[in-house]
Amino acid sequence: MGKNELPASITEISGGITVAAGFKADGIKAGIKQTGKPDLALLFSEKPCTGAGTFTKNAIRASSVDWCEEILPSKEIHAIICNSGCANACTGDRGRMDTELMAKLTGDTLGVKKEAVLVASTGVIGKPLPMDKIQSALPELSKVLSSEGGTNFSTAIMTTDTKEKQSAVRIETSQGVFFMGGTAKGSGMIHPNMATMLAFICTDASIEPELLDRTVKQTVNRTFNNLTVDGDTSTNDMVLVLANGASPVTISSESDLLLFEKALYTVCNDLCKQIAADGEGATKRVEINVTGARNETDAKLAAKAVANSNLTKCALFGNDPNWGRIACAVGYSGAQFSKEKMTIHLCKVPVFKNMQPELFDESSLHNALKSKVVTIDIDLGLGSFSAVAHTCDFSYDYVKINAEYRT
Amino acid sequence: MGKNELPASITEISGGITVAAGFKADGIKAGIKQTGKPDLALLFSEKPCTGAGTFTKNAIRASSVDWCEEILPSKEIHAIICNSGCANACTGDRGRMDTELMAKLTGDTLGVKKEAVLVASTGVIGKPLPMDKIQSALPELSKVLSSEGGTNFSTAIMTTDTKEKQSAVRIETSQGVFFMGGTAKGSGMIHPNMATMLAFICTDASIEPELLDRTVKQTVNRTFNNLTVDGDTSTNDMVLVLANGASPVTISSESDLLLFEKALYTVCNDLCKQIAADGEGATKRVEINVTGARNETDAKLAAKAVANSNLTKCALFGNDPNWGRIACAVGYSGAQFSKEKMTIHLCKVPVFKNMQPELFDESSLHNALKSKVVTIDIDLGLGSFSAVAHTCDFSYDYVKINAEYRT
Repeated sequence: MGKNELPASITEISGGITVAAGFKADGIKAGIKQTGKPDLALLFSEKPCTGAGTFTKNAIRASSVDWCEEILPSKEIHAIICNSGCANACTGDRGRMDTELMAKLTGDTLGVKKEAVLVASTGVIGKPLPMDKIQSALPELSKVLSSEGGTNFSTAIMTTDTKEKQSAVRIETSQGVFFMGGTAKGSGMIHPNMATMLAFICTDASIEPELLDRTVKQTVNRTFNNLTVDGDTSTNDMVLVLANGASPVTISSESDLLLFEKALYTVCNDLCKQIAADGEGATKRVEINVTGARNETDAKLAAKAVANSNLTKCALFGNDPNWGRIACAVGYSGAQFSKEKMTIHLCKVPVFKNMQPELFDESSLHNALKSKVVTIDIDLGLGSFSAVAHTCDFSYDYVKINAEYRT
Repeated sequence: MGKNELPASITEISGGITVAAGFKADGIKAGIKQTGKPDLALLFSEKPCTGAGTFTKNAIRASSVDWCEEILPSKEIHAIICNSGCANACTGDRGRMDTELMAKLTGDTLGVKKEAVLVASTGVIGKPLPMDKIQSALPELSKVLSSEGGTNFSTAIMTTDTKEKQSAVRIETSQGVFFMGGTAKGSGMIHPNMATMLAFICTDASIEPELLDRTVKQTVNRTFNNLTVDGDTSTNDMVLVLANGASPVTISSESDLLLFEKALYTVCNDLCKQIAADGEGATKRVEINVTGARNETDAKLAAKAVANSNLTKCALFGNDPNWGRIACAVGYSGAQFSKEKMTIHLCKVPVFKNMQPELFDESSLHNALKSKVVTIDIDLGLGSFSAVAHTCDFSYDYVKINAEYRT
């Protein structure tokens, strides 16, 4: 089975964070964002959830990251509270107290302990959270929670995102059916390292905390950690996964675990594609498939170097088949490759082989590059390992968005 | 003595690659560039030169890099031939033969061996060199060589550069006076790793090859290797230094070597500043000074992470004092810092201390950011090591230049 094929027992469906049984969510306008858009999102499960997560490796990280990492993995999670518009990062002691207060106020409203509440924040760095606004909004927000509120949740966690991101699957097992759905936010400052922007995934399967923890870390390493918009690793990145056991399915057998992992990969990979397509100023999504590597590390190095090359991404914006920049990025990636066997295909057209140009029709490749999804296939010619990286092109609007972000 | 102060015996003067005695140069239009601008440059010394260099670490590198690295260090160098408009990289066997032919044709014209001729190329990757045009232009180019031709040389090596880059110093020693002058080209694909774009430096001091080699590598590590425009390490980067001994000064004593190193640092650092200021689409130059590091590696990591942060550079383009992006970049740089003692100053204004914001006047800092040179000072609060990194802001025009580079 190739990595993009699904086993017959997994079906992609519409839905998001509330597609699994027993999860309610919503998002409202609390007044944190200057634009007046929705900015406070809440997810709740009556049944306690197994929770696990991955977190930014940035040494300067928000207190929300510390809070979640201290709690997880756990079997006692009931809620995620997330605000947009203010990252509450680089805010010192006050930031730490505000995160804890946010968990406590949410827990009080929902009737659970503060340690059952995960906290996430995204937005401008270095500004304190308007706790009065969050406190005022929580009672109303907890009242409107529903199993149809997934989209509102997804909308309320957006910053420069132009659209909300949701993904869901239905999984059939010998024990019965379970569901998994997720949402993510992210458009800029995206170059995760052991975690990503913000992503939340919920399932009604039952799974032990340590097993969930290991599966989440493995899957994030193969998906979100190969995603880049601009090479800047954020202070607030996290991926949180909750499993509340509301379905009849308990993940214990090897075959069920394989299905669970495949479902999680599918949701994470789909969210990655959506984030790349919505990268700040992006006009197209770019998928970099590296094969023929002597190990997985090399495959990732090569894929990520190309994904992070400003020059390659500018050329793609201009629909210029300037494959020399792709070869150059592989060259400085640190990955080993065969000088005789390495090949590069751009939009499936061979452009580079045996360290020299392949003949191709410039104008037809120029036209092919105008599509909404561009693929770059690189075979390093050395082994059997592979990796996929997701990114987008680099446009005037990326600069515009980030020159004027705070004004 | 601080690193930006010069000893009284070193004076910055005007001039470039022909400021030292015995060097002649010029540059002409050979028809390699589609624009019809000057594109072939030649430097010649009657006296054989000690030569040393540093070269790109990109695993995919042009044959000109291989050619020079095989020859250097040497005591028998007479010439540098450099073309712009075509990088002759990713051109396979033909590229290798063309580089060697370029050295041989140049040597034949000047009456020296091909091994006495260093070759450099810059421009589009993956296109073969038009050797007929180079061969036709060489006789004329060798005839016009003069000690006033430094600026023409500098102009003929430019690609997307908007201005030529030259720097020179006069050094007084106990043995007499010697001169050192250099030129560089570079505007994009700049993130050197053990070398840089193209830089050529000539001196009329006399120095042994091994000593020159060591001094060049150390100095490049502290200057060009801390320079970044876009984080893309080129296939063709090199720094070449020639010493022809035409002055009465022989570098042998410890004190003369210190002066020599200081002179070389001054010329290299000045060329770095000129490249950063002329970075593709740049509206301003940015200098990042990191102090208080526990070692030099950490100082460089922090300085280069900030220099490479697209988000920081976009904010600087917008004159936005968004220091959170600077703190974030230090956080993911991998450098160790003290959470209590780290400080960040932007345009000399304190903005971050003890992991939280410092109060400052937003509008006056916004105005300060409009200047042509912006400084970012970061003290990691741990030790006594420091590093300087040079970069520029990130503008719409960077994207424009690189979306349309080949068209």
